[in-house]
Amino acid sequence: MVRTVAQLRTPALLIDTPTFEANLAAMDAVLPGPRLRPHVKATKSTTLARHLAEGGHRSFCAATPREIEGLVAAGLVDDLLLANETLDTARLGALSERANITVAVDSRATIEAAASGGVRSVLIDVNVGLPRCGCEPAEAPALAELARSSGLEVRGVMGYEGHLLMVTDRAERAQRTAEAMALLTHAADEVGGDVVSGGGTGTFDVNTSCTEIQAGSYALLDTDYDTLDLPFAKALSVLATVISVSAKGWIIADAGLKAFGMDHGNPSWDDGEVFFCSDEHITLLPTDAVSSNGAAWKVGDRVRLWPAHVDPTVARHQRYHLVDGDDVVDEWEIDLRHW
Amino acid sequence: MVRTVAQLRTPALLIDTPTFEANLAAMDAVLPGPRLRPHVKATKSTTLARHLAEGGHRSFCAATPREIEGLVAAGLVDDLLLANETLDTARLGALSERANITVAVDSRATIEAAASGGVRSVLIDVNVGLPRCGCEPAEAPALAELARSSGLEVRGVMGYEGHLLMVTDRAERAQRTAEAMALLTHAADEVGGDVVSGGGTGTFDVNTSCTEIQAGSYALLDTDYDTLDLPFAKALSVLATVISVSAKGWIIADAGLKAFGMDHGNPSWDDGEVFFCSDEHITLLPTDAVSSNGAAWKVGDRVRLWPAHVDPTVARHQRYHLVDGDDVVDEWEIDLRHW
Repeated sequence: MVRTVAQLRTPALLIDTPTFEANLAAMDAVLPGPRLRPHVKATKSTTLARHLAEGGHRSFCAATPREIEGLVAAGLVDDLLLANETLDTARLGALSERANITVAVDSRATIEAAASGGVRSVLIDVNVGLPRCGCEPAEAPALAELARSSGLEVRGVMGYEGHLLMVTDRAERAQRTAEAMALLTHAADEVGGDVVSGGGTGTFDVNTSCTEIQAGSYALLDTDYDTLDLPFAKALSVLATVISVSAKGWIIADAGLKAFGMDHGNPSWDDGEVFFCSDEHITLLPTDAVSSNGAAWKVGDRVRLWPAHVDPTVARHQRYHLVDGDDVVDEWEIDLRHW
Repeated sequence: MVRTVAQLRTPALLIDTPTFEANLAAMDAVLPGPRLRPHVKATKSTTLARHLAEGGHRSFCAATPREIEGLVAAGLVDDLLLANETLDTARLGALSERANITVAVDSRATIEAAASGGVRSVLIDVNVGLPRCGCEPAEAPALAELARSSGLEVRGVMGYEGHLLMVTDRAERAQRTAEAMALLTHAADEVGGDVVSGGGTGTFDVNTSCTEIQAGSYALLDTDYDTLDLPFAKALSVLATVISVSAKGWIIADAGLKAFGMDHGNPSWDDGEVFFCSDEHITLLPTDAVSSNGAAWKVGDRVRLWPAHVDPTVARHQRYHLVDGDDVVDEWEIDLRHW
């Protein structure tokens, strides 16, 4: 078994274990137990999810039916929320005897799909300002009524303030989140049930209206979230090997855009600039002609790159390598990928 | 077995089979047989590669050792080129008895790695202007000498004009490619061997200097390449299901940025604008309030989205669904993913 980082094939996805554990502790200090409903779309690993469950977070949130199926197969069955609309409900209904599964609905069509697919419980998804799913707040009571008359348990509401997670100023973020959540809590009063679900890593501690927060990225973080004033640090990196050194000053490593989610731009590098990414290459412009080893950059050197967006980066890899200093202490499969 | 597109779960990666076959025919008309060395990094499927081999293209090009391993496992062993530098050469050397494998080298270190890893044949990779791998042209003869003295067969040179593939004006593209390839053919004369390998989809017919062209994207194409004057058409799309329709005019489908390579920007949609992508959602602004069916957009409608960059999009999916009209005629595994 591989025991040191130097022995890993590249590109390799690394979790810095002490930073990761510190992120989990920082979250637990604010949102212990069921106050956090970890979102597995960010981390896509049932091994990681089980680690969170052992820390007291036993209710999970997912974005796809596939993620729900994987959680059930892993025995994480206590309270699973598909925080997304789907018509592919038969996949979820087939698991109703084995797991407590709740699905977001925001229309007559999605309610009918839930009922006909054998889903038992729903949340009414309310649009709170993000141009995406969710009914208008005024429609929530009638949809709840329709769901109940279709035989579904309505556990409450959800509303995702995804447009506010990256508001830079904390006070503004808190104020606008409160305004968005006022829509949701009003709908919750009308809908009934005891669940008010929302939030994300960016609003985990300023969203004080929800009964549970759907955060996932906090565990690993990325350079985008790292620009905010959050008590989490970057734990996820991609390890690459320098395969070519140019006399013109750039060096090339073997992790390209296929190893990263690129929707938030290039990854970052502590020792210089990222010039550009190709499919399987990254061209780097080192700040200094010598590496941190004190020697000139050479073929075989290793570099670590910080992803700009954790979720789509993770989804590109088969496994995490958990590292502590130079040691590889564990390997976790990223088994919730694909659809 | 699924027989119609309507029965497919979404998101699903589709190949329009008639368009795909027309793309292959258009390429064959210009570069038959070994004049084309198809690059599997774009398509990542040994089933697709075998289809190309049946069409006369039996030499392949790859970007990673994993792709070479997969080609060998599939029996496509005639002439495989890793058109990239690697230190992970033992993986390739282990296959030397089963396949003819050639590796790109551009430094003493990569030559030593090739020799010590059991690789038998190399090409000297010459930098022709792209800020990436490749030795300076003047260094090529000495590297060839070093490789031969290390027991490696030097089959010739390669040089990739990746910075010229998207030059819009065809005459300028041809002129600048000729200038870049003059560097390569001069190096080829000095290095010896009979292979001069380079090119890509954008220069497949203007690069007249190489003995073989390393094109891959032509088979499926993307919206980026579709802006050029190439005889290829978009054959690759992502099928998604509308899961929510907003009273505010947008609709949301279930293929998000995890289903696309996003480095060239958002995918495109024939029936309107792409507003933005989230992990598992795409928010669309339809041009018309009614779909092509003549009815208002509704939950359950299907949409097809055109990726902006074929290579990283393909690498996100497990399989292609080959379609012809409403029929699904085959399913090909994308088995060359990961590393």
